[in-house]
Amino acid sequence: VDLRELGEFGLIGALRRRAGAPASAWAAGIGDDAALLRPRAGWERALTVDALIEDVHFRWRTTDPRALGRKALRVNLSDLGAMGARPLGFLLALGLPSATPAARLRGFVDGLLAEARSAGCPLVGGDTVRAPCWSLAITALGEVPQGRALRRSALRAGERLFVTGELGASALGLHILESGGPRSAAERRFARRHQLPPARWRVGAALLAARLARAALDVSDGLAQDLGHLCAESGVGADVELDALPTAPGFAALCRRRRLDPAALAAGGGEDYELLFAVPSDAPGAALLSRRLGVRVREIGRARRGRGIRWFRGGRRVDAPRSSGFSPFKPR
Amino acid sequence: VDLRELGEFGLIGALRRRAGAPASAWAAGIGDDAALLRPRAGWERALTVDALIEDVHFRWRTTDPRALGRKALRVNLSDLGAMGARPLGFLLALGLPSATPAARLRGFVDGLLAEARSAGCPLVGGDTVRAPCWSLAITALGEVPQGRALRRSALRAGERLFVTGELGASALGLHILESGGPRSAAERRFARRHQLPPARWRVGAALLAARLARAALDVSDGLAQDLGHLCAESGVGADVELDALPTAPGFAALCRRRRLDPAALAAGGGEDYELLFAVPSDAPGAALLSRRLGVRVREIGRARRGRGIRWFRGGRRVDAPRSSGFSPFKPR
Repeated sequence: VDLRELGEFGLIGALRRRAGAPASAWAAGIGDDAALLRPRAGWERALTVDALIEDVHFRWRTTDPRALGRKALRVNLSDLGAMGARPLGFLLALGLPSATPAARLRGFVDGLLAEARSAGCPLVGGDTVRAPCWSLAITALGEVPQGRALRRSALRAGERLFVTGELGASALGLHILESGGPRSAAERRFARRHQLPPARWRVGAALLAARLARAALDVSDGLAQDLGHLCAESGVGADVELDALPTAPGFAALCRRRRLDPAALAAGGGEDYELLFAVPSDAPGAALLSRRLGVRVREIGRARRGRGIRWFRGGRRVDAPRSSGFSPFKPR
Repeated sequence: VDLRELGEFGLIGALRRRAGAPASAWAAGIGDDAALLRPRAGWERALTVDALIEDVHFRWRTTDPRALGRKALRVNLSDLGAMGARPLGFLLALGLPSATPAARLRGFVDGLLAEARSAGCPLVGGDTVRAPCWSLAITALGEVPQGRALRRSALRAGERLFVTGELGASALGLHILESGGPRSAAERRFARRHQLPPARWRVGAALLAARLARAALDVSDGLAQDLGHLCAESGVGADVELDALPTAPGFAALCRRRRLDPAALAAGGGEDYELLFAVPSDAPGAALLSRRLGVRVREIGRARRGRGIRWFRGGRRVDAPRSSGFSPFKPR
């Protein structure tokens, strides 16, 4: 199938057929000037948008189209989860070169709609246009009980900070992909972690449902930067123990072999899409929380009165790890 | 201001300050992982997204940044209006080259936020990224009384078809801009019409409030193509009188001077952003409707049993006008 022959309406028709009928939350999906979401008393609706641009956020040389489709939706589900919201549906703005290979487009759509099905988050509308490179913007919509969303502004001094899963894995994976590709099974695992981050949105909804946390965000720009946002929005500071940052087996060894600082990557590497959240000082510890949430979580520090992040190693104050946060306006 | 120095968070901060506090419909705007919209019993929420890509939908050589900012929001408000929905707010996904001139970015943001203020449609969230060319996706959110949205599937045989304003003006303006630019005040008016289409969304909300229409869409891909969508979604056909298509003063003369077929441009030219709607056969005529809606409307034909569009001229059947509809996957 050549996209120039299929045309915009051919592509929209194919997406519409494959997206199927929208869930009962929707009065209208694809096929009208706008999608229509039914009202639900007592629930706020959460909206977020994320853009992915070819050769800025991914390169086709190192990207599997199906994984990109899944990732494109996951990064948005991650934002919903960081509010504690349950996904309801999404809109896709898709810019494509005229000469896009059909298999690439099909793989992307397959991955996107597979992720949508597994999250119960149907495609309900969008726009497809010609563009010089792949440029995606996905708007995801979710819902959360009124007044109970997890907020960046809700962190309080004394609360304990936790993070899900592992940090730095995506940044190490990106380094591997950008320097010749993986050369071992271990390297392939990290590369894969960059190509397809974990889906933690259910953890946010579970934290909210169990009334365990009130403050959260997803770690997309690196822990240091994102925790900085959380502190700034809440008007507090934080103390973080570098040795407590959770990393995957083999992470430190692979970093050292590549002359990368493991702590800098764990504290500053982007695109982890792990969930950072805070619980009161008398809340359960990591072991119990991990069991209740169904995912390993690690306590990494504590919020305090004041401003900024203080870093510790084995209890002793150390300098902030060198930043390796991704800035979308600087060439990578 | 250099965008590379300002960075993503600098740009987001500037947008956040200028967007101001969101309206009372919102529990949270910019600054968290997602915006939060409060519930409202009895109202559905309408969502739509449109993408604009540099050198596909506009060229900087012929585009004023401020007008582009206004247009980017208007094309989305137009979709909301076509459902009869009132705007509530919007999300902006903005891809920009690192070397974007500061004045261009400022002009765009000025226009965008000016349009947002005049429509009561605040910026509530977004994403800003680096991209090889300007690539915008705006998601607009509106609301409409439950079960009463104007629908593409609601057109019934016998209903009379009306269109607001004037057709073909944007396509003529684009032709003027792409062939050396305007050389007279009249040509400048048409060029301007392409750069900044009319804002008809209030007409859709008024049609809904007065219970005058149940079917509508906005004419963005050309009347022939869009009326085709309306007919296909509703399972009816339509008869259209070419001589009844409303055009601006001087339109036909300027078309002929440029060897363009005025009827083909009026019936097939894209980006009019006029509203096409249907009223029952016993509804008021164009003069009374125009007064009630506050905008000139013209009766252009009638829906009938069957399929497809039949074109007439002075009551006699004629061939369909040559298509000049814009296809986003074909080079212009």
